[in-house]
Amino acid sequence: MKEPLKGVTRRDFLQVLGSVAGSGSVYAAMSGLGLAAAPAAASNLPAVGDSIGKGVRVGIIGAGISGLAAAYELRKRGYECTVIEANGRAGGRSLTLRGGDAVVETGGIQHARWDRETQLYANMGPARIPYHHKTVLNYCREFGVPLEVFVNENRAAFVHDSHAFAGKPQENRYIVHSTRGMVAELLAKAVNRKALDDVLTAEDVEKLLTLLKGYGELDKDYIYRGGGRAGYAVTPGAGAVAGTQHQRPALADLLRSEFVRSNINFTEEWNQAATMLQPVGGMDKIVQGFLRQVGDLVIYNAPVQEIRKTGERARIVYKHDGQSRVLDVDFAIITIPIPALARIDTDFSATHREAMQSCRYTQAAKIAFQADRRFWEEDARIYGGISWTDQGIGQIWYPSGGLMEKKGILVGAYIRDDSVGASYARMSYAERIESALADGEKIHPGYRQLVKNGVAVCWPNMPYAQGGWAVWTAAARKNHYPTLTRPDGPLYLAGDQVSHVPG
Amino acid sequence: MKEPLKGVTRRDFLQVLGSVAGSGSVYAAMSGLGLAAAPAAASNLPAVGDSIGKGVRVGIIGAGISGLAAAYELRKRGYECTVIEANGRAGGRSLTLRGGDAVVETGGIQHARWDRETQLYANMGPARIPYHHKTVLNYCREFGVPLEVFVNENRAAFVHDSHAFAGKPQENRYIVHSTRGMVAELLAKAVNRKALDDVLTAEDVEKLLTLLKGYGELDKDYIYRGGGRAGYAVTPGAGAVAGTQHQRPALADLLRSEFVRSNINFTEEWNQAATMLQPVGGMDKIVQGFLRQVGDLVIYNAPVQEIRKTGERARIVYKHDGQSRVLDVDFAIITIPIPALARIDTDFSATHREAMQSCRYTQAAKIAFQADRRFWEEDARIYGGISWTDQGIGQIWYPSGGLMEKKGILVGAYIRDDSVGASYARMSYAERIESALADGEKIHPGYRQLVKNGVAVCWPNMPYAQGGWAVWTAAARKNHYPTLTRPDGPLYLAGDQVSHVPG
Repeated sequence: MKEPLKGVTRRDFLQVLGSVAGSGSVYAAMSGLGLAAAPAAASNLPAVGDSIGKGVRVGIIGAGISGLAAAYELRKRGYECTVIEANGRAGGRSLTLRGGDAVVETGGIQHARWDRETQLYANMGPARIPYHHKTVLNYCREFGVPLEVFVNENRAAFVHDSHAFAGKPQENRYIVHSTRGMVAELLAKAVNRKALDDVLTAEDVEKLLTLLKGYGELDKDYIYRGGGRAGYAVTPGAGAVAGTQHQRPALADLLRSEFVRSNINFTEEWNQAATMLQPVGGMDKIVQGFLRQVGDLVIYNAPVQEIRKTGERARIVYKHDGQSRVLDVDFAIITIPIPALARIDTDFSATHREAMQSCRYTQAAKIAFQADRRFWEEDARIYGGISWTDQGIGQIWYPSGGLMEKKGILVGAYIRDDSVGASYARMSYAERIESALADGEKIHPGYRQLVKNGVAVCWPNMPYAQGGWAVWTAAARKNHYPTLTRPDGPLYLAGDQVSHVPG
Repeated sequence: MKEPLKGVTRRDFLQVLGSVAGSGSVYAAMSGLGLAAAPAAASNLPAVGDSIGKGVRVGIIGAGISGLAAAYELRKRGYECTVIEANGRAGGRSLTLRGGDAVVETGGIQHARWDRETQLYANMGPARIPYHHKTVLNYCREFGVPLEVFVNENRAAFVHDSHAFAGKPQENRYIVHSTRGMVAELLAKAVNRKALDDVLTAEDVEKLLTLLKGYGELDKDYIYRGGGRAGYAVTPGAGAVAGTQHQRPALADLLRSEFVRSNINFTEEWNQAATMLQPVGGMDKIVQGFLRQVGDLVIYNAPVQEIRKTGERARIVYKHDGQSRVLDVDFAIITIPIPALARIDTDFSATHREAMQSCRYTQAAKIAFQADRRFWEEDARIYGGISWTDQGIGQIWYPSGGLMEKKGILVGAYIRDDSVGASYARMSYAERIESALADGEKIHPGYRQLVKNGVAVCWPNMPYAQGGWAVWTAAARKNHYPTLTRPDGPLYLAGDQVSHVPG
């Protein structure tokens, strides 16, 4: 029998784990598919190269970004790590598909029948990195993973709303700036009616009216009539072509639009605002960066069957080469999504189990197509960015890289709505593709002829993910989330499920 | 004596010239430093390869983008072109500097003492291409000039306003979203006070209030209290770090801010909204693309001295190798800026001269520095984009390319204000640099130690440009601009000065 772990061993481990996301918080560890925001100070860390981890064995379940980052940081400090991965590949939900790749869902297998060219890939999981996700960006710098700008907002992309604008796709800039113009015009009207004179000084009023004229592109009478920002029916050009502006849409149309009510704000959120970044050539370039460091620690095709507490220590039982194998460790770091974890026989306490049950995973799905011609660039001048629709596909993503190349991979659906996602997960592959084509046709006429070889990944059907990303109700975040940020004896939960920045 | 030009010759020439910007308008030709927007239809063009231009001689003055594009399109149709360029390089105002390059102003010479690495360049003239500038983008595709995203708007960059926010630089997102929150809050208040009940139905009111809550990130009482979009004092992260939002700024501060009054809208304008693009490695990659096609037609170091009408035809007198030389042509296309043209002895009609005098050129300037460490990325998480200040430098541009490289070139001033530009143009080189360093220090503390080897290009001092870009008053645009879009006998004006999309 091994001797008990010393207090200092446990404390050191907590510190190092905390460092992985550069955070003071222990479970900062490997959060948010490795994409967690990190506070500036990562203080009091055991220095790299210390023999602090010597003789301490750590079992890491899941070779996603979280697991790999944990292995990397722990090994640097002398810990003896083993990473156990159920799939035949690392990366977890950070899945980049290329021509020839296979996707195995519980219901069967799909192949990406795409040409093999550098720019022809699709990130079927996470695909964009906010500028403030320091930890992952620092790893990119450290591992030499080149980054480029990810276009999250494109004023040339489309807004399609079946209940507004006669159901016809509109340029994003037209909707965004008509909304802004309408808001500015209404406020100017109220101010001019002296409706706010008790909260605004005379000087405020004057300055605010000037501001609103600029902000909403209002005319001298404080009326929004459409404007350059909203785009042109006839674009201005050289010589005599001065351009013809769009007329403003009807107020009722704007108010009826689901996009105006919600997604108009999406690209301004904390995690979505410019500058967004992506690794050149696919998100898995980050995975490959980690694998260059700790690839030798990973055991692939090794689904975990049991996670046990053995006194202070832990035992991981996994299947490999048709046999059950046992890994005894001092600590286990569990990075796999809670819904996948729930299918494993574990010794978690009742409190931890209850907390896990309060964490919901999204039913996210993505569908990608090859296009032999970048029709979105050539025909619609859309370079990267997203078209939004109230149809099931939700969004169409245009690639931010490989601009002006001949071919491209289009993300023809990014489904974040759980009921739609669940419905796609029940469809056959052919039905998913057909549904995405029908929706895409509403945004890009002729779409069926322009795209081909769709691949649909429904994350709830991915056997070792069982969902997209963690979602917490406010109550669960308050009552149960803190439990999961604490270890359960030798068992440590990690990943986006223990971060305030999931997904 | 040559026989008179046939009517068909002149008509064909007009058509081809018109095609250069893909426009139906004759003078669409070479507008906007080649960056003109082009309408969809370029109809009735003489086909490429026609011998329509055979035996017709064209003299093109200026090897900027306009002149090169004209030469390229005309030669394809058989015209015999000569391009006469005063400088020792092509590109005109499309000037990309790299280590070792010299900049010759009327007042003297500067050298860019920068390291020679791919990402170490500065576009001292035009630097960004809107997605709708089809013509130049099509040339990029045709010539194989790779493009990447140009970050025009970055929520992480700074807003510095000496009269607001205690004079301290603020994150762009904080100012942008506090403004939006304030506008939404005030409108919600007015609506709740029934101040707009005569223009809004009860249903409108309900929908508008919902919209405003989302749009302005308002709380349940329709108050803006700061929010995630505006950024965090303590950023949210993994484990227990939920984040602390910024408090909203005072309304008076927002109303006092020059940025909020004007530049907050800049990146939403027709020519500035996402997706903006740039050639990978410098704007002069486009110039090089043209030179691969028509470089053999260019005579360098050939300042034009006279432009004459010789009956229906034209004569260009230029200096080369210390001698005056004569080029007799059927048509002359004059692409050089009007202020530079004004210094040449020409036979333009009184009407044309008067029209030219009504066109003003900006006193634009740019200053670029090398940084041995990309402190904006490493310290402030700024990847591309622009910081705005009310100080003389106006803007600081962070490179959109070479992200995560060690070194970078920063544009430490982009001066669009004419009085500031004129003042910089009068300074010595050392004074310009000192002034830019002092301003930059207010945005990035320690700036003086972080940047080095500044190069300042004041466009009014560039001998063959004499200014930045054409600006028209509304009256001049109405009364005089049309004159310049018409030929004066055999003399055809081209360039951004005859476009509705200058600069």
